[in-house]
Amino acid sequence: MYDLLKTIDDPAALRQLDRDSLRPLADELREFILQSVSQTGGHLSSNLGTVELTIALHYVFNTPYDRVVWDVGHQTYPHKILTGRRDAMPTLRQWGGISGFPRRSESEYDTFGTAHSSTSISAAIGMAAASRIKGEARTAIAVIGDGAMTAGMAFEALNNGGVSEDLPLLVILNDNDMSISPPVGALNRYLARLMSGQFYATARKGVERVLRVAPPVLELARRFEEHAKGMVGPATMFEEFGFNYIGPIDGHDLDSLIPTLQNIKALKGPQFLHVVTRKGQGYKLAEADPVLYHGPGKFNPAEGIRPAAAGKKAYMQVFGEWLCDMAELDPRIVGITPAMREGSGMVEFEQRFPDRYFDVGIAEQHAVTFAAGLATEGLLPVVAIYSTFLQRGYDQLIHDVALQNLPVVFAIDRAGLVGADGATHAGAYDMAFLRCIPNMTVMVPADENEARQMLFTASQLGTPAAVRYPRGAGTGVATVKQMTGVPVGKGEVRRESGRALGQQRIAILAYGTMVAQSLEAGTALDATVVNMRFVKPVDAELLAHLAATHDALVTVEEGCVMGGAGSACVESLLASGWVGPVLQLGLPDAFIDHGDPAKLLAQCGLDASGIAASIRRRFPIADAPAASTSAASTSAASAPAADPAPSDAPPSHAVTAAPDATDGGAKLVA
Amino acid sequence: MYDLLKTIDDPAALRQLDRDSLRPLADELREFILQSVSQTGGHLSSNLGTVELTIALHYVFNTPYDRVVWDVGHQTYPHKILTGRRDAMPTLRQWGGISGFPRRSESEYDTFGTAHSSTSISAAIGMAAASRIKGEARTAIAVIGDGAMTAGMAFEALNNGGVSEDLPLLVILNDNDMSISPPVGALNRYLARLMSGQFYATARKGVERVLRVAPPVLELARRFEEHAKGMVGPATMFEEFGFNYIGPIDGHDLDSLIPTLQNIKALKGPQFLHVVTRKGQGYKLAEADPVLYHGPGKFNPAEGIRPAAAGKKAYMQVFGEWLCDMAELDPRIVGITPAMREGSGMVEFEQRFPDRYFDVGIAEQHAVTFAAGLATEGLLPVVAIYSTFLQRGYDQLIHDVALQNLPVVFAIDRAGLVGADGATHAGAYDMAFLRCIPNMTVMVPADENEARQMLFTASQLGTPAAVRYPRGAGTGVATVKQMTGVPVGKGEVRRESGRALGQQRIAILAYGTMVAQSLEAGTALDATVVNMRFVKPVDAELLAHLAATHDALVTVEEGCVMGGAGSACVESLLASGWVGPVLQLGLPDAFIDHGDPAKLLAQCGLDASGIAASIRRRFPIADAPAASTSAASTSAASAPAADPAPSDAPPSHAVTAAPDATDGGAKLVA
Repeated sequence: MYDLLKTIDDPAALRQLDRDSLRPLADELREFILQSVSQTGGHLSSNLGTVELTIALHYVFNTPYDRVVWDVGHQTYPHKILTGRRDAMPTLRQWGGISGFPRRSESEYDTFGTAHSSTSISAAIGMAAASRIKGEARTAIAVIGDGAMTAGMAFEALNNGGVSEDLPLLVILNDNDMSISPPVGALNRYLARLMSGQFYATARKGVERVLRVAPPVLELARRFEEHAKGMVGPATMFEEFGFNYIGPIDGHDLDSLIPTLQNIKALKGPQFLHVVTRKGQGYKLAEADPVLYHGPGKFNPAEGIRPAAAGKKAYMQVFGEWLCDMAELDPRIVGITPAMREGSGMVEFEQRFPDRYFDVGIAEQHAVTFAAGLATEGLLPVVAIYSTFLQRGYDQLIHDVALQNLPVVFAIDRAGLVGADGATHAGAYDMAFLRCIPNMTVMVPADENEARQMLFTASQLGTPAAVRYPRGAGTGVATVKQMTGVPVGKGEVRRESGRALGQQRIAILAYGTMVAQSLEAGTALDATVVNMRFVKPVDAELLAHLAATHDALVTVEEGCVMGGAGSACVESLLASGWVGPVLQLGLPDAFIDHGDPAKLLAQCGLDASGIAASIRRRFPIADAPAASTSAASTSAASAPAADPAPSDAPPSHAVTAAPDATDGGAKLVA
Repeated sequence: MYDLLKTIDDPAALRQLDRDSLRPLADELREFILQSVSQTGGHLSSNLGTVELTIALHYVFNTPYDRVVWDVGHQTYPHKILTGRRDAMPTLRQWGGISGFPRRSESEYDTFGTAHSSTSISAAIGMAAASRIKGEARTAIAVIGDGAMTAGMAFEALNNGGVSEDLPLLVILNDNDMSISPPVGALNRYLARLMSGQFYATARKGVERVLRVAPPVLELARRFEEHAKGMVGPATMFEEFGFNYIGPIDGHDLDSLIPTLQNIKALKGPQFLHVVTRKGQGYKLAEADPVLYHGPGKFNPAEGIRPAAAGKKAYMQVFGEWLCDMAELDPRIVGITPAMREGSGMVEFEQRFPDRYFDVGIAEQHAVTFAAGLATEGLLPVVAIYSTFLQRGYDQLIHDVALQNLPVVFAIDRAGLVGADGATHAGAYDMAFLRCIPNMTVMVPADENEARQMLFTASQLGTPAAVRYPRGAGTGVATVKQMTGVPVGKGEVRRESGRALGQQRIAILAYGTMVAQSLEAGTALDATVVNMRFVKPVDAELLAHLAATHDALVTVEEGCVMGGAGSACVESLLASGWVGPVLQLGLPDAFIDHGDPAKLLAQCGLDASGIAASIRRRFPIADAPAASTSAASTSAASAPAADPAPSDAPPSHAVTAAPDATDGGAKLVA
């Protein structure tokens, strides 16, 4: 088993193989991926689709001297396995294990970290330009999918890459036969036409029509047909961008891939290779349903994925239900997603309201300004977007939505830590980068029903509003069908401290996911606990009241401390003239690796015991007498903490952030 | 004079004119613009270029029922003049006057506020989609320049707009004959080819070559030529995107424009009209040098723009000089601009280091990731970018630069208020949105030499760094040729208070432009004044020292208070356990209109007297005995201030921000 594969510890070994061994190697590699992913979970369909392409690239090009940049990067398991990480695959996407995406710190073969889509061509152009400046002979290669090609930044890069005639650049379009979603946008339609050969067929038809005018020129017609490809061919969009377009070729046929890449290697200037692959290739179940097998958990390869038992409702479902209910109530509601229909819980909405559903493709910038345009005409657009991807539409949110004070609702999913996807997908900054923008309202629900009610409130404001909620399930609170909303700019006291002022009477100001954790910590410490709800506008009145009636305040958020919701509270308090101690807890100033979400939060000191420990460390507070039992265990859990009280340490005391020497992506010390 | 023009108070009046009157109207309008802009300053070349197009659009379409969205919007003076704002033109870009860009609050004909480029197609698609949903018959029209077309978001929009066959959408490409800059990127080259007719010529040549095989088919050849346009035509890029491509036509010829638009009006589905105009059309001096006349100050139209007397050196020049000097010293330095060569002071750098200069077009996303790619290969990329446009590359800065901890220098120009360009161009948020990102270093120079030294420091860090400096000139400090840098993470005490602790001994922590103002205020109040220099990392040691030796702290920054540099200081102080009063001064939570920059700052309370007044209002402090003369005038200037001490008022007490009822862009109350 894996007789060939286990001899390949790096691409140099691969390049020693004869051509005839590559097909069996591909079969072993595919089987290895299937077995490995079925045991760890992770991305499957995309990796089964890039087995041959990966082998061919490392076989033909001189990696790592030649640079390969994998767009998105969730298709790099074959690449990881062939570049020395075969034995690390069981640790994939787990704390301390290898990443599900390329990482510069992980391997010299990972030339550029990716995860957000459509960055590869820009990065490869940078590498190719550097190669030219330094007088080196390396080739930079970007491998990009057809979906990623719809993002504007891929176009910006193409627009730049093609004009330098001496740029040692190869862009490989990995066209997945559009098996994942209905094609979105003109580009996908165009690629389909290129692939089907219809493009040339149409041209040929036009020629025939013309030639029919003078029937006897048959010889001419045949010659013309030969020319037609050459004449119309250069009009492919990629040729217009200055690339030498080659393809489409079969991306699973090593006998096409290898000679083609060898020929390309000899060519000068920007090359564009159109490769057609199939997601899930070689595993029938994944071929049949590549969406289901896109990113499965563990499963039995012989049986396939079994339907999971219905668990707690995820926030994305809460959103999806709200959107449908709201669309029933109000004909002005429209829903927009940048290529995240499933992930945003919008499948049902699309089915029920097809005319009011817009999947704009991977195009966050357009999604936001398109929403602004809809809003100017009196509609109520809801943009469903992950926190980390909203970073792509930031200028549009400021310039097109907030500045014009247009009623666009941002339903921000994956806010906070996301677990296995790691730092690239974490929604750590949205509270900081949204609350500084005038006209914005920013809400954070503590539970599922609050999410629903806040979304309703957001839709009723008539001004820009964001509701940010986490990946996965909440505390399990049932949603209330009736939409009553929440009072704007008002927090809610969930627990009152029984202590007297002057006796370490502490108030914990918690946001979103941190409310439940804080309630537990607050019970142990007999502290007041507040569900703050609004990052903006802050509840200045409540804050002033809490400040006046407590000895110290603690803010807790699942977001960066720097500039975050806690600082919003502090700014309000300082403006009111209050003077007193505030402890700010939240995510540290470091990129946080992949791992189990609950453990990651605990390592950031953002579980109940961590919150209690941080408070105790800062304020010499005794456990609540009434809650001594639960408090004792909390105390024990946090006993080894050593950080002394006031210091210059970063705000989140439970965490030591050390910069990663290689790529600087700081890691939490486990 | 202006006999026709003065009868046109709205487009309805325009539509009453007979066709023969339109040419003389265009001449009057052009003359009016020239006279008006020469007296107020503003954009000239672009407006002279859109006179006929504007007349034709309002003549043919039923505005404002039909929607016209002007991309960038600096070409809308003809539009403003024809839509009821002729008499307001003398107030253009001045405080209380009309904006230099379209504004929804200004006119119902301004359907969408623009200023940043490439938003128009997305907005128009939103309007067209809304029209379809609501069952209305309006057409949405986007007018976009060839430069704006290079931005990714225009591509994202085209990719979406063309696929809906029933979308009442017209995209007008206003192709300026590429008179402003050397063409950048493949798209511009492609458009040039379309315009020059070379596209068809090439096709025709191919046909001729084929036909030469059978010489007697002359009749066929002629017929084929007629067909060629039809056959090859559909391969234009815009047709591939699903649009019906029409053009190119002469954008100054009303006899082409009007019938073409009338025909288009009758067509269904997405239309794309390619119009060729000339920037500066009709004013010989501007035609000859459209860049010089792009955005002039006041000038005499008969004489043209005279070279201005050399004044103080602008920050962009300081940057340009540094970049050249640095490139001499270090061959790894490369310079990148997203289409802002002149505005970023990079003309000399391009001339001297053409191989290390990259103008990537209007493509901020690509610019940043391209820089990241260069950095992975050991180069030292410097991205010159305006604060407001960096918002477009935010995700790339996080995901591609900061997360990989790559040494990219961001030279951030136009940080703070920008004056006549107004809210859309203000650099108000960069300190807030940058400092929350791990691995970033963020510096703010207090003067020109500090800018130079900080840029040097940024280039030596080996990690991502930003230096943010304002539009225009600084205090006039000469730059020191030798590059010594600044100590990382260290502020500098500029003035020590002579007061005793307990006697209202106050420290003003100032950033960048606010250092000079704070020194003046600090002298009046005998306060300590600190040039903080670093937004990140904050100088925790200095802060702790200042906190221990003063009764109160005041932070001052030309940036939003919310989440800004002042809050960075506060977070550090709170983490160290300090408790004390802090007053945070900075830009209010409102979009600030166009106007004279110094007056705007004063209205925000960010001039010396405003800073002193805010401090006095918050802390009952006497004027410094030694500085009683200067302090007296300061005191007089701020005497009418009425806001009582501690309250829930927004942090910047000198400013009352009231939401603008129409578009919510809040205005400062003058």
